[in-house]
Amino acid sequence: MSTVDIPSEAQATDEVEAVFAEIRRAFGMPFVPNLFKVMAHNPAYLKASWERVKVVMGPGLLDRKTKEMIAVAVSAVNGCDYCVLAHTAALKSMGVGDGELVELMAVVDLFSGFNKLLEGLQVPPDIGA
Amino acid sequence: MSTVDIPSEAQATDEVEAVFAEIRRAFGMPFVPNLFKVMAHNPAYLKASWERVKVVMGPGLLDRKTKEMIAVAVSAVNGCDYCVLAHTAALKSMGVGDGELVELMAVVDLFSGFNKLLEGLQVPPDIGA
Amino acid sequence: MSTVDIPSEAQATDEVEAVFAEIRRAFGMPFVPNLFKVMAHNPAYLKASWERVKVVMGPGLLDRKTKEMIAVAVSAVNGCDYCVLAHTAALKSMGVGDGELVELMAVVDLFSGFNKLLEGLQVPPDIGA
Amino acid sequence: MSTVDIPSEAQATDEVEAVFAEIRRAFGMPFVPNLFKVMAHNPAYLKASWERVKVVMGPGLLDRKTKEMIAVAVSAVNGCDYCVLAHTAALKSMGVGDGELVELMAVVDLFSGFNKLLEGLQVPPDIGA
Amino acid sequence: MSTVDIPSEAQATDEVEAVFAEIRRAFGMPFVPNLFKVMAHNPAYLKASWERVKVVMGPGLLDRKTKEMIAVAVSAVNGCDYCVLAHTAALKSMGVGDGELVELMAVVDLFSGFNKLLEGLQVPPDIGA
Amino acid sequence: MSTVDIPSEAQATDEVEAVFAEIRRAFGMPFVPNLFKVMAHNPAYLKASWERVKVVMGPGLLDRKTKEMIAVAVSAVNGCDYCVLAHTAALKSMGVGDGELVELMAVVDLFSGFNKLLEGLQVPPDIGA
Repeated sequence: MSTVDIPSEAQATDEVEAVFAEIRRAFGMPFVPNLFKVMAHNPAYLKASWERVKVVMGPGLLDRKTKEMIAVAVSAVNGCDYCVLAHTAALKSMGVGDGELVELMAVVDLFSGFNKLLEGLQVPPDIGA
Repeated sequence: MSTVDIPSEAQATDEVEAVFAEIRRAFGMPFVPNLFKVMAHNPAYLKASWERVKVVMGPGLLDRKTKEMIAVAVSAVNGCDYCVLAHTAALKSMGVGDGELVELMAVVDLFSGFNKLLEGLQVPPDIGA
Repeated sequence: MSTVDIPSEAQATDEVEAVFAEIRRAFGMPFVPNLFKVMAHNPAYLKASWERVKVVMGPGLLDRKTKEMIAVAVSAVNGCDYCVLAHTAALKSMGVGDGELVELMAVVDLFSGFNKLLEGLQVPPDIGA
Repeated sequence: MSTVDIPSEAQATDEVEAVFAEIRRAFGMPFVPNLFKVMAHNPAYLKASWERVKVVMGPGLLDRKTKEMIAVAVSAVNGCDYCVLAHTAALKSMGVGDGELVELMAVVDLFSGFNKLLEGLQVPPDIGA
Repeated sequence: MSTVDIPSEAQATDEVEAVFAEIRRAFGMPFVPNLFKVMAHNPAYLKASWERVKVVMGPGLLDRKTKEMIAVAVSAVNGCDYCVLAHTAALKSMGVGDGELVELMAVVDLFSGFNKLLEGLQVPPDIGA
Repeated sequence: MSTVDIPSEAQATDEVEAVFAEIRRAFGMPFVPNLFKVMAHNPAYLKASWERVKVVMGPGLLDRKTKEMIAVAVSAVNGCDYCVLAHTAALKSMGVGDGELVELMAVVDLFSGFNKLLEGLQVPPDIGA
């Protein structure tokens, strides 16, 4: 259970509802994710964060599927169930199957292991790396 | 400085040299990375780890560039300079430029922040996520 | 479910009960938190840990509310539900509301993101920092 | 050394220079921190990130000194030398001394330890927590 | 609930079943842990990972009990409930009691705290360390 | 460079010197590690922390070598160079060689990888685990 009240969408002020409407439209979802609802306790923070989501996840040099894969990989390493679930669902809606998800996590497994091994033995970077 | 001796390639036994030769060939590099050289203190571990690298990073459902991007993202979150440097170099050798690297890290930034916010407020996953 | 037995307060030896009595008094609570109950499997560790809690969380150069905020921020980054819940409850008992909690977590969000971005691009500290 | 080119302030386009000018003014510093300079590879990301810094670190329900302390605590747990150095310098410029910094880190020490102990023994939250 | 389908043992191809049979035998368990079942979506990854488990956890310079303790300690720091539960069960089957488990976690507590304190104050290693 | 002044041993008050003398004796070293010297900014914290070190690292149910191995493993996962260096040196002084250190880190590698894989696929614990 959240440590703060999760405001309902019906409670939103006009300022907050304007952001919520954009979020529902952008994600093609009938509801606003809890992540953004809790941010509504601080409307300026909600607004600035949503602007940044649009910039970072919107069209750019990397395609959206790659970005969603990085989102899941990062959230796995940081240990965030919420984001792992939400962005795996996004990948599935793009047609990504179980085989790809396991292959993605195999890369996370491989490097998370090597990352700690290298720290534990204090191995210096290779010349020219 | 490494906490264990980093064996030189010239010291390698035949068993270890067979793996080293494969590594140099696979990476198209004239030397074996320190990561694999320290593993040579335990040849069975070196061999099993290299076999797994080939499986995980070799041809599959995800392309190599995506895998290298995930390698850099994971290593950034885990805080491993060695792997960040090595796999950023790999991405650059594939033609990835500064703009793409910054966009990649923007995704890492975005989700690393949200991951901790969600934990700190104990926000439950959305219904249907 | 805990991997070790959680001893009941009624089972406590005199040595352990002396610490438990202090804990109940210090926190103004009718029960001893599970954190300290599991430590009772090693009474010397319980005692030394409680002494340190008193020193670190007791009167000093920082006020208690600031310390509780740091406790929640640290526990969010480390991913500890138990401590996030316990120390958010402590903040609420001091009158901290949802707006402040979200603002606290906005700082955690901001820096957790930047921390990983800087690692991922290996950005050197600024001269004079 | 950064894995991407750190653009000089002199190279900034008008769009980027407008943000840079605000940053120098806001921090009262004659130069732009490397964190923001690397972001200039993606001007929209720089702009959205700076807007969010202003919202999160600007006036609100928590005072600036508390926010800077949380910044240092979070960066310590995430292992970011850059942010630890930059925000400790900020605290010192507000008159925070070595005693307070050690007391701050004592809280980080205490909870980082307990966080992992609780995970390792799978201790459930207390009833009513 | 897992984000990917967990294949039943009955569904295993001959290639996968050969690994599964070895796993059941090695662990002396009538079933294959979910960790290995999800890997079966990528049989080459399952096989290479299992080979590595045998090398790393099999006979060597450290005894099995020490390795299981390290497994639990590492999993506590990384925040993995699954591995904490599985390898604590392994320790208990070797006769390790609650007192030893608490002492193990006391070491994890002590160093997790000091690790973050040292980062937060940027304390340099001692000469000769 | 440390963000706080590292007090010299010669500056120590009688209260601090009493702890320092015990530390030098306990470690059989002619100097006090920087970890404890920075704590001297807060003598009560130094004293309580040292008492806890004695309890946790002193004689108990686990032997000292096992505890030092756990210290290195935990510090590797948490990314603390200082503690990795100090406690690897302690292990070497007990006769632990490069082969054992690599085997220790192979366990850290194996589980750090699996820990993140399991989180990334949200794999539930096995029945009976």
